[in-house]
Amino acid sequence: MAPHKLCMIPGPIEFHEDVLAAMSTPATSHVDPNFVPIFGESIEMVRKVVLSEKAQPFIVSGSCTLGWDMMVNLLEQGDEVLALNTGYFVYGAKITTLRADVGSRPSNDALKQALSEKKYKMVTVTHVDTSTGVLSDIKAIAQTVKSVSPETLVIVDGVCSVGSEEIRFDEWQLDIVISGSQKGLGVPPGLSVVVASPQAIEVYKSRTTPIISYYSNWNKWLPIMEAYESRKPAYFATPAVQLIYALHASLKAITSQPMEVRFEKHREVSSKFRQTIRDLGLKTVAQCEECSANGMTAVWLPEGIEIPQLVPALAAKGVQIAGGILNGLAGKYFRIGHMGISVTEPERHHIDKVVETLTDSLKELGYKA
Amino acid sequence: MAPHKLCMIPGPIEFHEDVLAAMSTPATSHVDPNFVPIFGESIEMVRKVVLSEKAQPFIVSGSCTLGWDMMVNLLEQGDEVLALNTGYFVYGAKITTLRADVGSRPSNDALKQALSEKKYKMVTVTHVDTSTGVLSDIKAIAQTVKSVSPETLVIVDGVCSVGSEEIRFDEWQLDIVISGSQKGLGVPPGLSVVVASPQAIEVYKSRTTPIISYYSNWNKWLPIMEAYESRKPAYFATPAVQLIYALHASLKAITSQPMEVRFEKHREVSSKFRQTIRDLGLKTVAQCEECSANGMTAVWLPEGIEIPQLVPALAAKGVQIAGGILNGLAGKYFRIGHMGISVTEPERHHIDKVVETLTDSLKELGYKA
Repeated sequence: MAPHKLCMIPGPIEFHEDVLAAMSTPATSHVDPNFVPIFGESIEMVRKVVLSEKAQPFIVSGSCTLGWDMMVNLLEQGDEVLALNTGYFVYGAKITTLRADVGSRPSNDALKQALSEKKYKMVTVTHVDTSTGVLSDIKAIAQTVKSVSPETLVIVDGVCSVGSEEIRFDEWQLDIVISGSQKGLGVPPGLSVVVASPQAIEVYKSRTTPIISYYSNWNKWLPIMEAYESRKPAYFATPAVQLIYALHASLKAITSQPMEVRFEKHREVSSKFRQTIRDLGLKTVAQCEECSANGMTAVWLPEGIEIPQLVPALAAKGVQIAGGILNGLAGKYFRIGHMGISVTEPERHHIDKVVETLTDSLKELGYKA
Repeated sequence: MAPHKLCMIPGPIEFHEDVLAAMSTPATSHVDPNFVPIFGESIEMVRKVVLSEKAQPFIVSGSCTLGWDMMVNLLEQGDEVLALNTGYFVYGAKITTLRADVGSRPSNDALKQALSEKKYKMVTVTHVDTSTGVLSDIKAIAQTVKSVSPETLVIVDGVCSVGSEEIRFDEWQLDIVISGSQKGLGVPPGLSVVVASPQAIEVYKSRTTPIISYYSNWNKWLPIMEAYESRKPAYFATPAVQLIYALHASLKAITSQPMEVRFEKHREVSSKFRQTIRDLGLKTVAQCEECSANGMTAVWLPEGIEIPQLVPALAAKGVQIAGGILNGLAGKYFRIGHMGISVTEPERHHIDKVVETLTDSLKELGYKA
């Protein structure tokens, strides 16, 4: 691999050599008999990553954000949406937002209360908030939603969690998980990856008003996914052949061992990383262990050290970390990603290098633990 | 480059080694100071490819098809659209279609007539119809539209023409050119490339109803393009970093010589290719020289030879060509792409190989010219 700064931000993450090699697959037709099974198997492996037997994956050229656009397939004018974090929607839906303090998450009681007041078409929740590293308990949330209002769909923003956090799509009764290629799935950015439950597909199929989107329209994409999964080519738009070869390479590695091993490895490394942060006398933005993400950590800056000092100090030592992105607090904390091969292949010493360069940089900037 | 079938379909086309190498750029943050100018310069070079000084390019993760979705930024409920070929729209627009026979194009008189009957918000035209290889005279069409109805926007589907056909965006008064990465631009699929005129941007800015799309919304993308062009990072959705490195590599090669040289080269090679087709006793689907695309050719199959014979015969000799895709006629013709490095770098002998394997395959299948 070409020499480069270690990319230890909460995505894009470091890519395996095999994944990068797949990115430069020579020109291949999107209906080539060699490519068709690559796409088909990728669809199947996405299902495995979220531990589902029956969910429908969609793999479409676009960024993670496109996944939110696809929710247009489930929404009709006037539908009520309960957003446990930030709501993204247009498309005529009415949004109610349940907020929590920075670093914590809305309580289960607040959720129950909200659900009892109105009939919601969907509840949206961000599994890992990339801006703070807070992990939601999507299992408990889905349980609450489905016990109070079984028809309500549970929509999970899994952008920063698929591939790094435990997700049991079927068992937890999730309806949608939205993600993309460049985080826990370990593939360069450019693919939107969305997984839909049979219940969500049913809601989409039984809608009575037309879907007001062209590119995000499942009427276009569902037949394509079904075709490739049954190893037939089909055409709506040219798939990102090289990115799908890369996704295939990464998913093959990811699914070569039980997902539980991968979840556990991310838990172990992140827990150790948070301990290191505490040992340095620093505080994470997430306020408790169980609400801390396992694929990334946001850390408050110590007094007197600023982002424009710390980030370049690490960059000069060959490690890229990220600043904060929370409105009004962006300059107060930094973020580090620990996902994928940086975690599953400790022999690469990515995390060691982050800890070492962070420690040295803080010291250089005059910080005393 | 890994051994592979020569991909001589009307896109994806063959990629230069430098472009494929850029595809495997190691993990790089989308706000990395190394990446920011790569994105910024790519935006500038897209403008150069369509010979414009003032158009606004949009480079977004997605397929070519996403570009059509972006037309939502220009349309409001009830707007009239005149489609010179097939109309794609939803979004509340009313479509009038001007059709022509297979292999030919609607006449200028028919266009004038249509424009005189109604006020159209936009006229859409496919520059090269990928299904037939028919080239539209977008210069004449734009001239007619702007002389009869200057407020009407001229929207060009340039998916199979940008980078291989002459496009003079400013001089011809085009308003939108929609394209993608994997055809004349010579980059793997996964990027939507759209160019908008100041007049189109003005229509977008002066609309009075909200834009009913999230992912295609220029309110999100315009600030991103403006930021990267002025060499500042900005965030709406993570750009496809590796694809943009690849686009940069290809655009650098393309813009290293005057576009006229590239247009002429494509004209020369395609004209010679059509002569070869005639010499073989075959007929192109496009019915005249001036309505024949320069980046691809569709050819009627000779009596007694079928697509499931011809395409595999060439594949066995290491060349991938494409069947037809026109409803009802798909089995009657085949398509060959001649764009990008296959044309500009004759020392690769791509076209020679196509001609040779096509001639041999036809002979094997019992065809006598």
